[in-house]
Amino acid sequence: MDSDFGVQRELSDLQKHRSLYQPDLPPCLQGTTVRVEFGDATSTDSSGVHTVSRSFPHTYGQPLAHFLRATAQVRDAQIISEHPSIRVGIVFCGRQSPGGHNVVWGLHNALKAHNPNSTLFGFLGGSEGLFAQKTLEITDDVLSSYKNQGGYDLLGRTKDQIRTTEQVNAALATCNALNLDGLVIIGGVTSNTDAAQLAETFAEAKCRTKVVGVPVTLNGDLKNHFVETNVGFDTICKVNSQLISNVCTDALSAEKYYYFVRIMGRKASHVALECALQSHPNMVVLGEEVASSKLTLFDLTTQICDAVQARAEQDKNHGVIILPEGLIESIPEIYALLQEIHGLHRQGVSIDNISSQLSPWASALFDFLPPFIRKQLLLHPESDDSAQLSQVGELVIMIETEKLLAHLVETEMNKRLKEGTYKKKFNAICHFFGYQARGALPSKFDCDYAYVLGHICYHILAAGLNGYLATITNLKSPVNKWKCGAAPITAMMTVKRWARGPGATSIGKPCVHPAIVDLNGKAYELLRQNATKILMDDVYRNPGPLQYDGPGADAKAVSLCVEDQDYMGRIKKLQEYLDKVRNIVKPGCSQDVLKAALSAMSSVTDILSVMSTPSFTAQKPL
Amino acid sequence: MDSDFGVQRELSDLQKHRSLYQPDLPPCLQGTTVRVEFGDATSTDSSGVHTVSRSFPHTYGQPLAHFLRATAQVRDAQIISEHPSIRVGIVFCGRQSPGGHNVVWGLHNALKAHNPNSTLFGFLGGSEGLFAQKTLEITDDVLSSYKNQGGYDLLGRTKDQIRTTEQVNAALATCNALNLDGLVIIGGVTSNTDAAQLAETFAEAKCRTKVVGVPVTLNGDLKNHFVETNVGFDTICKVNSQLISNVCTDALSAEKYYYFVRIMGRKASHVALECALQSHPNMVVLGEEVASSKLTLFDLTTQICDAVQARAEQDKNHGVIILPEGLIESIPEIYALLQEIHGLHRQGVSIDNISSQLSPWASALFDFLPPFIRKQLLLHPESDDSAQLSQVGELVIMIETEKLLAHLVETEMNKRLKEGTYKKKFNAICHFFGYQARGALPSKFDCDYAYVLGHICYHILAAGLNGYLATITNLKSPVNKWKCGAAPITAMMTVKRWARGPGATSIGKPCVHPAIVDLNGKAYELLRQNATKILMDDVYRNPGPLQYDGPGADAKAVSLCVEDQDYMGRIKKLQEYLDKVRNIVKPGCSQDVLKAALSAMSSVTDILSVMSTPSFTAQKPL
Repeated sequence: MDSDFGVQRELSDLQKHRSLYQPDLPPCLQGTTVRVEFGDATSTDSSGVHTVSRSFPHTYGQPLAHFLRATAQVRDAQIISEHPSIRVGIVFCGRQSPGGHNVVWGLHNALKAHNPNSTLFGFLGGSEGLFAQKTLEITDDVLSSYKNQGGYDLLGRTKDQIRTTEQVNAALATCNALNLDGLVIIGGVTSNTDAAQLAETFAEAKCRTKVVGVPVTLNGDLKNHFVETNVGFDTICKVNSQLISNVCTDALSAEKYYYFVRIMGRKASHVALECALQSHPNMVVLGEEVASSKLTLFDLTTQICDAVQARAEQDKNHGVIILPEGLIESIPEIYALLQEIHGLHRQGVSIDNISSQLSPWASALFDFLPPFIRKQLLLHPESDDSAQLSQVGELVIMIETEKLLAHLVETEMNKRLKEGTYKKKFNAICHFFGYQARGALPSKFDCDYAYVLGHICYHILAAGLNGYLATITNLKSPVNKWKCGAAPITAMMTVKRWARGPGATSIGKPCVHPAIVDLNGKAYELLRQNATKILMDDVYRNPGPLQYDGPGADAKAVSLCVEDQDYMGRIKKLQEYLDKVRNIVKPGCSQDVLKAALSAMSSVTDILSVMSTPSFTAQKPL
Repeated sequence: MDSDFGVQRELSDLQKHRSLYQPDLPPCLQGTTVRVEFGDATSTDSSGVHTVSRSFPHTYGQPLAHFLRATAQVRDAQIISEHPSIRVGIVFCGRQSPGGHNVVWGLHNALKAHNPNSTLFGFLGGSEGLFAQKTLEITDDVLSSYKNQGGYDLLGRTKDQIRTTEQVNAALATCNALNLDGLVIIGGVTSNTDAAQLAETFAEAKCRTKVVGVPVTLNGDLKNHFVETNVGFDTICKVNSQLISNVCTDALSAEKYYYFVRIMGRKASHVALECALQSHPNMVVLGEEVASSKLTLFDLTTQICDAVQARAEQDKNHGVIILPEGLIESIPEIYALLQEIHGLHRQGVSIDNISSQLSPWASALFDFLPPFIRKQLLLHPESDDSAQLSQVGELVIMIETEKLLAHLVETEMNKRLKEGTYKKKFNAICHFFGYQARGALPSKFDCDYAYVLGHICYHILAAGLNGYLATITNLKSPVNKWKCGAAPITAMMTVKRWARGPGATSIGKPCVHPAIVDLNGKAYELLRQNATKILMDDVYRNPGPLQYDGPGADAKAVSLCVEDQDYMGRIKKLQEYLDKVRNIVKPGCSQDVLKAALSAMSSVTDILSVMSTPSFTAQKPL
């Protein structure tokens, strides 16, 4: 099998054309001299500071890093002028995301541009290759038919976690054996949590290998102050939006079907939200809305049925309803049922006996569900993930929520049909869009983003940093305005004090948690703005197939463009203000200037102190 | 509802760009003067001649028509110079196909270009609008946001058949009431059979409305001497190939899943074949192969299992298997079972009692099948199509063949796992690709093809022809080489003397039958050539998302390009030879020339007589 990795392969005409595409670098990374400016030491969300700093004594509190043009006039920024040859390993972790290959390419290019003797090793088959020291040396030849191509098939992947002591030790042994200067981990929230842990362990063990993470996940849920979006999210949303739009057109042409479409994307609903913004299906039910409003399965069914009925009254007997993969675990009573089932599994109760040992209310809910869902709820233990993962989270992705809701809505509509409040036959068709998007050719945006991130990985290693994530901000602007940097992964960690259900193993442990859709954010606001019109008037919008030339080729995700992020830009701006104040108010300045500065600063610090207390943060409306 | 048809709507950037795209016309249709050359009277497949000619006394045997440049030097070709204003109706029939809107646009443009007072009426909601005289007048305004767009939502559609006496009379009444000069029917094999019947009935009833058919069906099965491909087929194959390729990349990246993908396309396997040629999935099982080799469900399962095992021996535990929608009815014993169930339905046996009344062998097969398939087999009578349609054909499209085969393969692989002949766990993921492709933005090819066909419809009507299908040949060449013409639909009809199963109502009746994949054709040969390599070596190929600019935008279907069709071109060439012979061998020519001509012609006619006998045709290897 291994011999197949990295083989040259036949490409279609479009693939060939894409393989010749050369992403641009932002000005700061052009040439071979790059300045690094370090910001203040980072912190993390106030409630977790102590736990994170205790768990990561070597890697907590490191400063932000900004990569600047060699010519940039910045105080304290240092030029890294020595580029000894280095040895770096790279590994794909977790669900494949379009664009992943370009991180490898970007890193390889940067390595060779700075020192042709540097070497890049790809680990074969994901983390298993890392543990077993199975590598493929990355060369121009190896890369040639993988540039700007989808999938992770250059190197492959597996279940991919690096968490147990045994796994961490195996990784350490490999890095020592191969004498690596750097290890780059490509993945999402869990893989980057692993990367942070590995960095800490390596530092503790005085291993010279520095660990760098790259935010690559189609779920788009590795989002925080430092990370605006993830490699793969743009492509997945475009491909899914195309398919959703096609289904909308189909619904409108045939005028007799309701499509229930479940969208891959794990617990958070980012993909579903973005697809809805791009294609305007009649309804989208975000897991975050359901959780925040505590909607039951009954509420949800009624909501959809009422919409179907309202549309029928306008003689519209078709529609498209989008359901995120993670919706199911946001429904309170389903989640509680899953918890009970999970608990019984852990006690060793066999599948056949579980239903008889459920609590009365869980048993009633279980019996109410259609047989195929009952079966899926029980399939649970066949998932072979480690007990350290939130098994419910892993499992719910197997549950066909779209079929469950279609079934419940159909039952209710048939009831209304009999009662005479609804007149037509209700026809549902169910879809799950995931696998057919995940292997797609990456969009130009994802190609560029991943390629530049690959370059940044090199500069992080050249600067000798450990436990950092490569970051780019201002992504909604063209590539020449992108700001390149690096942030300690520990600064993205939070600690959950409580959690519903069996994900409890992560309670109290610092983790990079998946970001959920912000119901106060601009993207969600945009979705709600026209919700009624979109529900009733079929203002479907077809972004069309992903384009590489001509109009549409440079389109970016709506949710990326609408949010006003640039956290790192603002942090820099603040530093500039502080520097200016320091410059103006030097010993020797007038008493008046000093008094004005003191008064203003005292008021600023007062306000910020109040705003930073945990109780203030908690009062924010959800 | 009706008020929504043809409304202006919000378009995405790419949609807007596409709406501004103006397809070219081939040289013969440019300008407002077009010559029409008539060929010899048409015949049909020898065995059906008598039946067809008896059933279509007014419309059988009409000549082929070729549309030529006004300047073309062709004997007997006539220029149509008068263009009185005419009134034309147009209707979408059957499953929507990408590109359908452009037929309306092309026809509208041609009508207005030749006489601005001509009027085009679109019938709303398919054939139901035709019967109920519900129309929308087509104008530039109405068309503006539907040009080059997918779906049939400009006018809508329903189940769409025009077959019963009542339906035919309603159509006749509408055409008379609206005083139509022409009625254009957009659809596939059944709709064009209906169009031929309507043309005959109208001629008999001395109704002045001429009926014209247009080959628009995503199935690609309206294929014969005169028709090379159908509007929609190109787009569907490209969109599906993209998705199949994505799934292939996914399989190769994760290395643990087998994907079973069922592809929409009705009885014939054209779409599945074309998609396999474009994307190289490991296996594709064509219904035509199964029927021709009389493979049982057991054979088929074993074939797939052996392939899975052979791949496993090379450490490959993933793969992609394509199954056409029509496969299920090609499996002999399943079809026989469906026939029995269908027979019992017709006798009024209720669903609950059917299984107990099956013959012993059918009962044994039924019990062997997994419960979800048993349920789907029985769902049968809920299909609300007319008894005149082959109900089995209508019904099998509901059966989840991919899940059935995945289930059987999994069972067998688990058995082999226990026996030790297979080592890994077998994981299957099932997909049905249909609805998400059907509403797609049409490819450039489909936009051009449909637009030009729309123009041809006008010239057919201007030439006063009735019962013709608009045709374009030499489609694999650029638009400026396309040959435009028209062929009597009766010339495409055949008569089935026998048929398996309940499609029996069409036995003995002249019909345009769906063309099946030619197992002696070049496209199939191409598929088989590399079958082993493709099965074992994962030479997946990703045609990528459908492009409108740059490389790939002008790609055409592999099966279209590889076949050497141009039947109409050859018919014309033959006519030229015959004309030359007649010119050379005129009374007054030498005795030697005459003798040579007689000798050569006698030998040609002898050969052709032998080759044209039905027994000779029947001996052709399948």
